[in-house]
Amino acid sequence: MSTTVIETARTDPPVIRLRLDIAYDGSQFFGWTRQPALRTVQGELESALSTIFTRHPPAPTLMVAGRTDAGVHALGQVAHLDVTEVQLASLERPHRGPAKGRQLDGPATLARRLNGIVGLSSDVYVLRASIAPPGFDARFGAIWRRYEYRVSDAAGPRNPLERNRTLWYPTRIDVEGMNYAAESLLGLHDWASYCKPRDLGTTIRTLQEFRWTREPDGVLVARVRADAFCHSMVRALVGATLAVGEGKLPVSRLVELRNRLQRTSEFKVVPAKGLTLLEVGYPPDDELAARAEQTRAKRPPIVGRAPI
Amino acid sequence: MSTTVIETARTDPPVIRLRLDIAYDGSQFFGWTRQPALRTVQGELESALSTIFTRHPPAPTLMVAGRTDAGVHALGQVAHLDVTEVQLASLERPHRGPAKGRQLDGPATLARRLNGIVGLSSDVYVLRASIAPPGFDARFGAIWRRYEYRVSDAAGPRNPLERNRTLWYPTRIDVEGMNYAAESLLGLHDWASYCKPRDLGTTIRTLQEFRWTREPDGVLVARVRADAFCHSMVRALVGATLAVGEGKLPVSRLVELRNRLQRTSEFKVVPAKGLTLLEVGYPPDDELAARAEQTRAKRPPIVGRAPI
Repeated sequence: MSTTVIETARTDPPVIRLRLDIAYDGSQFFGWTRQPALRTVQGELESALSTIFTRHPPAPTLMVAGRTDAGVHALGQVAHLDVTEVQLASLERPHRGPAKGRQLDGPATLARRLNGIVGLSSDVYVLRASIAPPGFDARFGAIWRRYEYRVSDAAGPRNPLERNRTLWYPTRIDVEGMNYAAESLLGLHDWASYCKPRDLGTTIRTLQEFRWTREPDGVLVARVRADAFCHSMVRALVGATLAVGEGKLPVSRLVELRNRLQRTSEFKVVPAKGLTLLEVGYPPDDELAARAEQTRAKRPPIVGRAPI
Repeated sequence: MSTTVIETARTDPPVIRLRLDIAYDGSQFFGWTRQPALRTVQGELESALSTIFTRHPPAPTLMVAGRTDAGVHALGQVAHLDVTEVQLASLERPHRGPAKGRQLDGPATLARRLNGIVGLSSDVYVLRASIAPPGFDARFGAIWRRYEYRVSDAAGPRNPLERNRTLWYPTRIDVEGMNYAAESLLGLHDWASYCKPRDLGTTIRTLQEFRWTREPDGVLVARVRADAFCHSMVRALVGATLAVGEGKLPVSRLVELRNRLQRTSEFKVVPAKGLTLLEVGYPPDDELAARAEQTRAKRPPIVGRAPI
């Protein structure tokens, strides 16, 4: 596979871009984004990276597809980092012992060492590390994000083993009503009413999928997909449809509220703990660079932007 | 429904027996059994009971069907407690506000207040409290216990959200081989080789069901049922069949080891965290008293017995 060698503006050595696929239980993290003195996923992983590359600085930093809030989980988070050829080679140093048949593989070694440092029973796990295809950008190259939100209503189970990933809702919820509401919201719209205003970027997004199901064990699961989400949008969409499912709002009201383009108190933004980032979608490899360029052009600078 | 009123030997007031159905995440508990200065499920619940009955002593104690070890979970644990008529009535005191249409129900109030005290997002949850049928005894009346054990092998997922209830196994496991092994063990046998010797009771048990499946998400789940289990027996059965599934032991060896009636180092007792007590079975109500008497006669006194 060909690798991405990026020549930076200064005379830094060329770098190779790696993709990380990451899962975490968000309960004990103050979200993805590195913050001073708080435990965050990015902070944990970058700290481990700096340990791994102590003898080969600089320590790489991570760029992520979905900057999850405190308490939000991920089973399919994607991030990238750039390493120098020297750093990559340092992962493939031949071992002292007999290496017969050993397949040297820097990215796999990186994943193994990251997991070793954060701990094998940790709440964060690097599922895979790989050399990214040319033009890959975890954030700007993504074409969609898919989340799920879990609710246990009065008809569902109270399972303490699932308490950190399931909202307990005291009343009985009508799934069919929620699905009418969810369907009415699909499409390309301005979601300002469903976003926390601290996001400086656009609030125009395409809601591609939004469906509630009652699983065999009685738990209600919303599956939501969009090209991207503005801050707290999934949790607002869930709160709005729950208000319908509970009989507190008519279906038509959700569209009316959306079209007003301002925040409302008619539904609640549900807690983070029910939310999991399941998957991030990317275009075929040969369209990656064009996609990242296109997205980057539409977005404001990173400074000041809030996490989703 | 008729209630059990038990006349004790001394001149204590008659008591009503209540049944509790309980779920918990065992990760943060030092097992079921109350211990000084350690957080245990029994300790948490009895502490809450003593708060609820502060004005109506004595505080009830709990008798349980399966005294789970530290780290073992439960979704269908069963316990009983005896309350006086005064205590039960104290749960049904009329409220100050308008009580129109309110159905007074002492056991339901007890469950609600217990959950309120331990906290609604706690790792222990009382699923239901009910007045026990005559002759009911959570421990001595039980006719079977059903457990599951979860393993994620090299072909399974590494899901940090499931890390406290799933053993991560570094190699690939052959499910078919494990099932041959599991089936060969079924039936009424002396399980001394599969029990920790600190159990003073009989090691003769009937292994009624033992089957491994690979779930749709790739996780391996063992489902095990017996009339009762001696200490660490489920975890030894799981360890033994994993040794077969990994190719380290032939199927026939498990029966040979069992028939030697002494502990072995040829397989490992797997960690507690993969284990969950799913369900406890009781006979029809009219056979309860006879069953409890029969079991009690076969068992040694409680003092000195280890938890399962």
